[in-house]
Amino acid sequence: MATSESGFAAGVLASWNQVIGQVDKGLAGWSDEALQTEVAPGRNRLYYLLGHLTAVHDRMLPLLRLGDRLYPGLDQQFLTKADRAFTGEGPTAAELRKAWAEVNGKLTAALAQLSAAELLERHASVSEEDFAKEPHRNRLAVVLSRTTHAAMHEGQMRLVKTAK
Amino acid sequence: MATSESGFAAGVLASWNQVIGQVDKGLAGWSDEALQTEVAPGRNRLYYLLGHLTAVHDRMLPLLRLGDRLYPGLDQQFLTKADRAFTGEGPTAAELRKAWAEVNGKLTAALAQLSAAELLERHASVSEEDFAKEPHRNRLAVVLSRTTHAAMHEGQMRLVKTAK
Repeated sequence: MATSESGFAAGVLASWNQVIGQVDKGLAGWSDEALQTEVAPGRNRLYYLLGHLTAVHDRMLPLLRLGDRLYPGLDQQFLTKADRAFTGEGPTAAELRKAWAEVNGKLTAALAQLSAAELLERHASVSEEDFAKEPHRNRLAVVLSRTTHAAMHEGQMRLVKTAK
Repeated sequence: MATSESGFAAGVLASWNQVIGQVDKGLAGWSDEALQTEVAPGRNRLYYLLGHLTAVHDRMLPLLRLGDRLYPGLDQQFLTKADRAFTGEGPTAAELRKAWAEVNGKLTAALAQLSAAELLERHASVSEEDFAKEPHRNRLAVVLSRTTHAAMHEGQMRLVKTAK
């Protein structure tokens, strides 16, 4: 049974890694200037979507009880506000690429250390009392939902041609 | 342990259903005429992406060993060829909506009947010999990869405004 469970965990992690890898592949083909391109007329720029995904993944660290956030400063620009609505000084494209890599590096390493049983433990936004009644509110649900969220935005990002 | 395994299977199925539901939500907000809209200039039309997802999901029936395909006739137009490259008479938007609903209805009902152990059994494109060496080539891997595939295209489709 333990073997079967680890089969599930490995499959879920492989799916997560596959989507992150697709974003990385796009990033390798866009220059910093190209990151200013909108994915469709009047829609989000690549730069914004990269910041958005980085902020969302950074928030997964405490949500999955895997450690502290690395870049809490991203939320105002990339979660609270829409693209181009932030008036402060945001990160450069190069800084954002670095943050994306660091966040996913820390997150993916920590996820790989979780046992199948630990993946089925509660996430940090549900109390132990509520989790006893709603056991589907687990880390797995967070990982699966953030995987499809990243895939959804990656599909938008890939509409912008890469140099490769 | 059986409880934990079914927790994994339930989470994976919920993620699949969530993505299908997002596409359905978009479809409810686009008229048949609106389905002719490209998701971005020069990119696939909603009509094509709907046919593409329907064909891919229809192929999951035999691939997951859950039964025969319902619409094998879709492949030439929506898998082999790019959008607008097919010169035959394709399905109407209404026919495509019906096919999409039927395929996912049959598929999702069959998936819900699979036990966690059955989800970890081989898919139809891997031989029993190869599967013994590569147990990750299971139904689960197909479901997860088609979930992110659908999410990726759903992200593109949602760039087109709906009437609701």
